[in-house]
Amino acid sequence: MDLSKRIDRAMSSAIARAQGATDPACHAPGRLAAALNYAVTPGGARIRPTICLSVARACGDDSPDLSDRAAIALELIHCASLVHDDLPAFDNADFRRGKPTVHMAYSEPLAVLTGDSLIISAFDLLAGASDTDAPRAMRLLRLLARHTGMPYGICAGQGWESESKVDLGAYHRSKTAALFVAATQMGAQAAGHEPEPWEELGARIGEAFQVADDLRDALYDEAALGKPAGQDAIHQRPSAVEEYGVQGAIKHLQDILSGAIASIPSCPGEGQLAQLVRLYAERMTPVAPVRV
Amino acid sequence: MDLSKRIDRAMSSAIARAQGATDPACHAPGRLAAALNYAVTPGGARIRPTICLSVARACGDDSPDLSDRAAIALELIHCASLVHDDLPAFDNADFRRGKPTVHMAYSEPLAVLTGDSLIISAFDLLAGASDTDAPRAMRLLRLLARHTGMPYGICAGQGWESESKVDLGAYHRSKTAALFVAATQMGAQAAGHEPEPWEELGARIGEAFQVADDLRDALYDEAALGKPAGQDAIHQRPSAVEEYGVQGAIKHLQDILSGAIASIPSCPGEGQLAQLVRLYAERMTPVAPVRV
Repeated sequence: MDLSKRIDRAMSSAIARAQGATDPACHAPGRLAAALNYAVTPGGARIRPTICLSVARACGDDSPDLSDRAAIALELIHCASLVHDDLPAFDNADFRRGKPTVHMAYSEPLAVLTGDSLIISAFDLLAGASDTDAPRAMRLLRLLARHTGMPYGICAGQGWESESKVDLGAYHRSKTAALFVAATQMGAQAAGHEPEPWEELGARIGEAFQVADDLRDALYDEAALGKPAGQDAIHQRPSAVEEYGVQGAIKHLQDILSGAIASIPSCPGEGQLAQLVRLYAERMTPVAPVRV
Repeated sequence: MDLSKRIDRAMSSAIARAQGATDPACHAPGRLAAALNYAVTPGGARIRPTICLSVARACGDDSPDLSDRAAIALELIHCASLVHDDLPAFDNADFRRGKPTVHMAYSEPLAVLTGDSLIISAFDLLAGASDTDAPRAMRLLRLLARHTGMPYGICAGQGWESESKVDLGAYHRSKTAALFVAATQMGAQAAGHEPEPWEELGARIGEAFQVADDLRDALYDEAALGKPAGQDAIHQRPSAVEEYGVQGAIKHLQDILSGAIASIPSCPGEGQLAQLVRLYAERMTPVAPVRV
């Protein structure tokens, strides 16, 4: 089965479970249940779970159910973080993926609860692994928590935005890189490989995405992005474009991606994985400045 | 060691870990780190972890480290739910436990992140159990997720407050009872006992707390509560006082607690546990109407 079908199927099943649709006796609040699905669709590129499953495949993918759980857990956390980041207290964004954000479509209380529920679903999904997979599932749960919460994960990354003095290294590691490191490490771990050697690949892909995101935020308009543009400048957030200029940032992006390919640990699917990173590299590099 | 010392020690250690204080190489955002501790102190009665550990003891408590993890995981979730419930979009509460709420003391973004981080810490704590405890820890993780998220947990309970037509049974089961059922079931599970027979005790204690809370909200003033009073009437929330009147609600509370004692499953510490519920019963029953 191709990766995107695998991801869609596993995501639908995770959301149906969270909505109570798999238990005929369950009566769950309908609007919150609907908001859960709204928050994870349309899927977009599903980049984190794709990376996770690609690494799992490269490592043999001997426990595909567990790999699916790891990949979807990551995407649930990513979607939760978008819902909370869009809230009026943070980015106050009205649109995301070309449609109203969750708090605009459903209300602010339901957006807070949607984020909370998606976070919990992510851990529930891994905790629901079979007994045979339990030892690996426990390690996956620890990796997910580490890269998601405090003090190393995306919560810490967001937390840095409330500090008057920012540790830029820690900020970037936790804000964007964390979930990509989680993606490579959890993919390897789900297939029974040690996660540590996969940290660098995840960190470099994460850094590349941050630079690409900075470039898109600076160069594209709202219609092209499906969300408000120019947010880094408005919120005075550190950005690669501010640091290196547009051409410098594009060069920096390409260097990072070459480093990413060079860092892939030796494994059965090494070549295929390098191919995938090259594909992302092409997609990530902005083609033409639409706005400036 | 007495239970409250055990709870304090385990809570401090969980918070220190989430703050990054246990890793000299870690650099975490200071205000979010401080807010995590602020959100879980002062401890108050620590009712849910006390019930969890009391049940674990009654069942033999053969793995005390795991019981501690279960108890603190529950309290972390409870504290997270208070931080999010106090947000302007929900109760818009300025005070809690006699001090400013987290969003008043630290800002709304940090309050959202504090709740998120505490939820993740709860799962991280259980995922950090020893390999020997792994099979039980996986079951504890599932119980925690079930009673916390969608479709059965406290997120579902809060979600019902955004519905125009409320299923009152499902609302009460998930809004308040869920974490008490989690407390009794996780206490039993941590000590290697089947969790199912412990559901009724948790549900009845949870129901009693809801009725006691409705009574306090209706009868006490802000100074006595340490938070705004009369919120049920203001937010038109369903309440036992509205349903039965004050005296009727007190009688109802006592009936529920007798039922709770009668429901305690046969176990080595049965008598001691009944004693504890009687103690809670006394504490819960309002002594005198301060406001009306």
